[in-house]
Amino acid sequence: MDDRLERQLSFALEIDKEKNILRQTHLSGHGRRENDAEHAWHMAVMAYLLKEYANEPVDISKVMIMCLIHDLVEIDAGDTYCYDKEALKTQKEREEAAKERIFSILPEDQKNELTALFDEFEAGESPESRFAHAMDNLQPLMLNNSNGGADWAEHNVTSDMVYGRQRTTEAGSEQLYEYTDKVIRDNIQKGNIKENGS
Amino acid sequence: MDDRLERQLSFALEIDKEKNILRQTHLSGHGRRENDAEHAWHMAVMAYLLKEYANEPVDISKVMIMCLIHDLVEIDAGDTYCYDKEALKTQKEREEAAKERIFSILPEDQKNELTALFDEFEAGESPESRFAHAMDNLQPLMLNNSNGGADWAEHNVTSDMVYGRQRTTEAGSEQLYEYTDKVIRDNIQKGNIKENGS
Repeated sequence: MDDRLERQLSFALEIDKEKNILRQTHLSGHGRRENDAEHAWHMAVMAYLLKEYANEPVDISKVMIMCLIHDLVEIDAGDTYCYDKEALKTQKEREEAAKERIFSILPEDQKNELTALFDEFEAGESPESRFAHAMDNLQPLMLNNSNGGADWAEHNVTSDMVYGRQRTTEAGSEQLYEYTDKVIRDNIQKGNIKENGS
Repeated sequence: MDDRLERQLSFALEIDKEKNILRQTHLSGHGRRENDAEHAWHMAVMAYLLKEYANEPVDISKVMIMCLIHDLVEIDAGDTYCYDKEALKTQKEREEAAKERIFSILPEDQKNELTALFDEFEAGESPESRFAHAMDNLQPLMLNNSNGGADWAEHNVTSDMVYGRQRTTEAGSEQLYEYTDKVIRDNIQKGNIKENGS
């Protein structure tokens, strides 16, 4: 087998580990905790089906691969809960080191390609990355809402924290943000999200 | 919320159930059994990274969405192990009913689009579906091989059965088939796959 294919298949095997990285979100039906691979799959399917709501035209192939790979760094860096202030301080450093190790398994051109896609997602400045971020927010919000907001209640999440995160949903899709805003207001009213002024 | 978006989000929530459909394949590192959503995610990433090996030029966006949705029918129909002769007899009927129920949650145009993609995958007659089938075969073979062929050994799988399935890998990618053929021969030699003439 030539070196190029060997590196590609080594990478394909390495990323299997993403299935063991657990998130704070629970599956619908008050199921177990979701893992990163399942989350990425769900985001990519949703991106494809909801692309008509993107604020700007998007290359859906790029959005999908961005969704599929955006959490690979967590194989080394672990999942950083979006409302964990302490963990967020070291997230960037941990993920940069992981990115270098994991993407270096690939042939150089594909290492560069995936690194660029990951960086573009993180920066959130292109139409595709903005829409991918909307999916990254909408998917767990949808699951959490289906479970009666249990993940928010468990972590004492406040309205400022949720709205802080969902600002990036609005940048990707104003129409989908209307839905997330409705869900948030509903969960504040029910006491699942604590209101702390707005 | 308008009816169209409501249907799309209902579908997005419904397909969360795919994360509970277990396959016979085990994760690398002799891990737990893999589920359909993880398998679909893995196939789609591999398709993107290995597209240069497709026998024919492919629309990678189409291959990826095909990989991502090809097992949704198993939410109702369950996973049919590719070497289970009895279950294979009723697979088509079970999956057709599931396809109708699940895709009908979507707006009509997207129901038709996903049904067409699913049918195209099943038929395996287009370049995209042939390459997607190669991923559907290569991904579990790679995991199984990394676990010392334990899934083949557990199910008393024979060389005829494995080669029967891998014929569709060759139709999608001759170069990747060379790799799968090498893996199969290696596992026959080690006694993980029983040889029954060829």
